[in-house]
Amino acid sequence: MPTKTRSLEDLRARLAAFADERDWDHFHNPKNLAMAVAGEVGELVEHFQWLTPEQAANLSAATREEVALEAADVLLFLLRLCDKLGIDLAAAAERKLALNAKKYPVGKSRGRATKYDKL
Amino acid sequence: MPTKTRSLEDLRARLAAFADERDWDHFHNPKNLAMAVAGEVGELVEHFQWLTPEQAANLSAATREEVALEAADVLLFLLRLCDKLGIDLAAAAERKLALNAKKYPVGKSRGRATKYDKL
Amino acid sequence: MPTKTRSLEDLRARLAAFADERDWDHFHNPKNLAMAVAGEVGELVEHFQWLTPEQAANLSAATREEVALEAADVLLFLLRLCDKLGIDLAAAAERKLALNAKKYPVGKSRGRATKYDKL
Amino acid sequence: MPTKTRSLEDLRARLAAFADERDWDHFHNPKNLAMAVAGEVGELVEHFQWLTPEQAANLSAATREEVALEAADVLLFLLRLCDKLGIDLAAAAERKLALNAKKYPVGKSRGRATKYDKL
Repeated sequence: MPTKTRSLEDLRARLAAFADERDWDHFHNPKNLAMAVAGEVGELVEHFQWLTPEQAANLSAATREEVALEAADVLLFLLRLCDKLGIDLAAAAERKLALNAKKYPVGKSRGRATKYDKL
Repeated sequence: MPTKTRSLEDLRARLAAFADERDWDHFHNPKNLAMAVAGEVGELVEHFQWLTPEQAANLSAATREEVALEAADVLLFLLRLCDKLGIDLAAAAERKLALNAKKYPVGKSRGRATKYDKL
Repeated sequence: MPTKTRSLEDLRARLAAFADERDWDHFHNPKNLAMAVAGEVGELVEHFQWLTPEQAANLSAATREEVALEAADVLLFLLRLCDKLGIDLAAAAERKLALNAKKYPVGKSRGRATKYDKL
Repeated sequence: MPTKTRSLEDLRARLAAFADERDWDHFHNPKNLAMAVAGEVGELVEHFQWLTPEQAANLSAATREEVALEAADVLLFLLRLCDKLGIDLAAAAERKLALNAKKYPVGKSRGRATKYDKL
């Protein structure tokens, strides 16, 4: 079974067990986890800050792996945050996709990055 | 089938179709998407900044839904970023979990938030 | 003359000279600098993420100096960003303070963190 | 006297008075303020995320003013954070500039964005 079929629910459960085994639950309150997400995103962004858009789209294999692990860090803390708040992240993503489909109808938003309230 | 069993791969594919229908691909280069992730995380953090840890752990239903949709935004742009870079985010999360298990052995890290290189 | 009397204009000019001597101007476009600010803020936030509010208010001297240097990094890139955009940051801060005084009148906002549009 | 000669110390003192008048001191602990800086930087970055580097360097007057006010927000919360931690931000900027001059000697770093430890 390829890794990519794993669900967010599966990841969530493994992260909870990981934190539980290490007695990290008291660090992992939502306020702290929101900050941890922000910290990891800072590290993700740093990989791209001095690159041109072209360079950023053509990373070396080594840099791409560094970026992949930073992106994973963002996901892991984000899932952990949602878990502690009782949020089902996959379900929230569904709701957001449905909202986006309404906010950005194909006809109006084609080829434009304009924010929905300025369309 | 509950939503939560959906894979990241499924979400990735739907996001790609969503952007494609709207001809957004030229906005969605990795540099731009890394910034978009940072922007959404800023919105996520704003929900928590003036709350005590206790308040942050006890959000109202309305605020929790706002947070859920911000968390979804982070996930959606993160998945989109990985897609454009050819990164399988679920597989990267697996690699990161395996690295974390080595970096933070249960015996050494129990009850401590110390960064691994200071353990 | 104590350091603290230095103006933002003085800092701006020295940063411009620093970048110019190193031929960094082509890296220092506004898009890149905005990302650099975000990256540095991520590092700043990381210092606080696992601390309780009480611990965060009582840093060791060593940690406080690390935080001071991260805060300086944020300021330096922020000044550089403003410089490249032709924004006078000190004047913008004046305008923002004046706006805040209107948005948050003492009578209405006393003791409340409510955002102005919800007052 | 042009606004731009105002010192950071002057701004710091006025921000402290502003918060004091509104009884905001209990919200303004360092952990909260670090998050507030991150939140404002997210808003700053959002202005640039879909722009090409060329577009980002040529903002309309209206957008430039929006960016100026976001940059001001970052500065104001950053100064407030430093104040609550007993950090003199202008002095920290001096120390950081001196460190940068050592880490990035002109001869080695000319025209390169390489991080100092990889020079």
